[in-house]
Amino acid sequence: MPSTLPLRPRIRDRRVLVLDQRRLPFDEVWIPVASAAEMAAAIRDMAVRGAPAVGLAAAWGMVLAHLAGEDPAEADACLRSARPTAVNLAHALDRMRPDWGDPKASEIRARTLWREVKRAERAIVRHGSRCLAGRVLTHCNTGPLATGGTGTALGAIVEGFRQGRITHVWVDETRPWLQGARLTAWELAREGVPHAVITDSTSAALMARGEVDAVAVGADRMAMNGDFANKIGTYGLSVLARHHDIPFWVMLPLSSLDARLATGEGIPIEERPQEEVRTFAGRAIAPSDTPFRNLAFDVTPHTLVTGIVTERGALLPPFDEGLLRWTAP
Amino acid sequence: MPSTLPLRPRIRDRRVLVLDQRRLPFDEVWIPVASAAEMAAAIRDMAVRGAPAVGLAAAWGMVLAHLAGEDPAEADACLRSARPTAVNLAHALDRMRPDWGDPKASEIRARTLWREVKRAERAIVRHGSRCLAGRVLTHCNTGPLATGGTGTALGAIVEGFRQGRITHVWVDETRPWLQGARLTAWELAREGVPHAVITDSTSAALMARGEVDAVAVGADRMAMNGDFANKIGTYGLSVLARHHDIPFWVMLPLSSLDARLATGEGIPIEERPQEEVRTFAGRAIAPSDTPFRNLAFDVTPHTLVTGIVTERGALLPPFDEGLLRWTAP
Repeated sequence: MPSTLPLRPRIRDRRVLVLDQRRLPFDEVWIPVASAAEMAAAIRDMAVRGAPAVGLAAAWGMVLAHLAGEDPAEADACLRSARPTAVNLAHALDRMRPDWGDPKASEIRARTLWREVKRAERAIVRHGSRCLAGRVLTHCNTGPLATGGTGTALGAIVEGFRQGRITHVWVDETRPWLQGARLTAWELAREGVPHAVITDSTSAALMARGEVDAVAVGADRMAMNGDFANKIGTYGLSVLARHHDIPFWVMLPLSSLDARLATGEGIPIEERPQEEVRTFAGRAIAPSDTPFRNLAFDVTPHTLVTGIVTERGALLPPFDEGLLRWTAP
Repeated sequence: MPSTLPLRPRIRDRRVLVLDQRRLPFDEVWIPVASAAEMAAAIRDMAVRGAPAVGLAAAWGMVLAHLAGEDPAEADACLRSARPTAVNLAHALDRMRPDWGDPKASEIRARTLWREVKRAERAIVRHGSRCLAGRVLTHCNTGPLATGGTGTALGAIVEGFRQGRITHVWVDETRPWLQGARLTAWELAREGVPHAVITDSTSAALMARGEVDAVAVGADRMAMNGDFANKIGTYGLSVLARHHDIPFWVMLPLSSLDARLATGEGIPIEERPQEEVRTFAGRAIAPSDTPFRNLAFDVTPHTLVTGIVTERGALLPPFDEGLLRWTAP
């Protein structure tokens, strides 16, 4: 899959180039990032997004910390707090920790992490594509831009199409940032996969009409019972899929698992600025004094999940034993 | 309730002024409409929307037909086909039929229809406000702009707040036209009702958090068993409300009932141009060759409805007997 990378995994002129995903698919703008603080800002402000991609960006942020003369502990803390929900951020930073103060080792470690991400995603795509068929609905963006590799759920969808099992993809536009309309539709068009974008509230009607055969999404953090946080709207899809007896799959690397959490109740849910919902591409949709509520994620309980796909394979309920086995040291 | 009217119910300079709701709440632009054909265009292009308001606009379109020298049968057909889902359009035109060719009688009839709409809505508000309490979630816009009177579901919500029973309103932004963010939030702000706008896919998460006590929506057409069509997204809300054991109310005038339909299966669902979803507040969200699917309405089955409110009262299941009684000649 010829992928557009969320960032360039190399140092040039003491900087790492990050693709500004807020401008896609209209403009390809690369942001030169020169420090961990700047990388944290790129993550916080959504220039780079997607749980696995955010983890990789954080790792390269630590490489930049050395070049920028930042204190490693401060750089780590700054990156760690950039976005609270995706656990990949914390996992990547934990992996970088042994190399604090060693620029060369840090860079090698960041490259290693990226290779691991790519390898894990190839396996997710292989396992996941076998679980899907017909017309698949997806939410947000879980392709190469979100992950740095082949993608998770979207990678499996593209592979399922290549194998002739998937015929059509319904893409939720995914308010407020419209990652579905902007990024997923773009990635599917590049791969020649038949698709159509719908408003997020159209999914239910398509399910009722019998036009959806499966739902596949990614995850920002999964607890050890299979509960998981993902882009706002995912939870509603899981309820709707169950009501219509449609399989609902979640696909994620093991680096999105949080072994310290028994259930999804402990997952921190980011609330983002009202302004993100009040405006689109600089245009207001309501007066500036209109109150908005902007939950960035929701939690889907494992009871509404048909199956979980990671690099280790596809898991059917009960999930807890399998997840424990997969994460055992 | 000091209401902004969707149109001015009078002829001035051989024209009727229609408020362009696409420009609200930012600009108050009144469109001079001089013929039935122009009124049909105003309806088709969403300058005037909301099932009851569209019915009133069609009635005044027939008054204009005389002034513009249009053939009444052609004017009727043109208006009737402007939007397929709301049955109020057909009902209003049926009422105008006996006065074809009589400009004076047509104008009197159009005024009579408007008085009937207002009277019906005052009763809906009275009955409906007693059915709601706490934090109410609503979809699209069912206030004065949508109806020409006090509103249906939104009128009941405002009245419930005045009576001290309703404390907060969650407003779905309602893609693609954003009637919630633009119109409902504006009407609630004018009435001093505490509210917050959310993206459509946030509703499920708020329900799961226990922050929604009731859902109240309007309807564009109801079959005699209680199945009804309404703005896309309504059906999904009904499934989510049931899953979370939250009361789900639909409030509509009897003029939105279609006595010829036994079930919702026969309701025509309008599919509108892809361009409406491809743009957001006038800005493109995807390249012009990205495929979109734009279902304007969906059908909610009566089995997911807690209660139906019309000008005759509040009805609990089974609905068919009560609806038959209310519509008996």
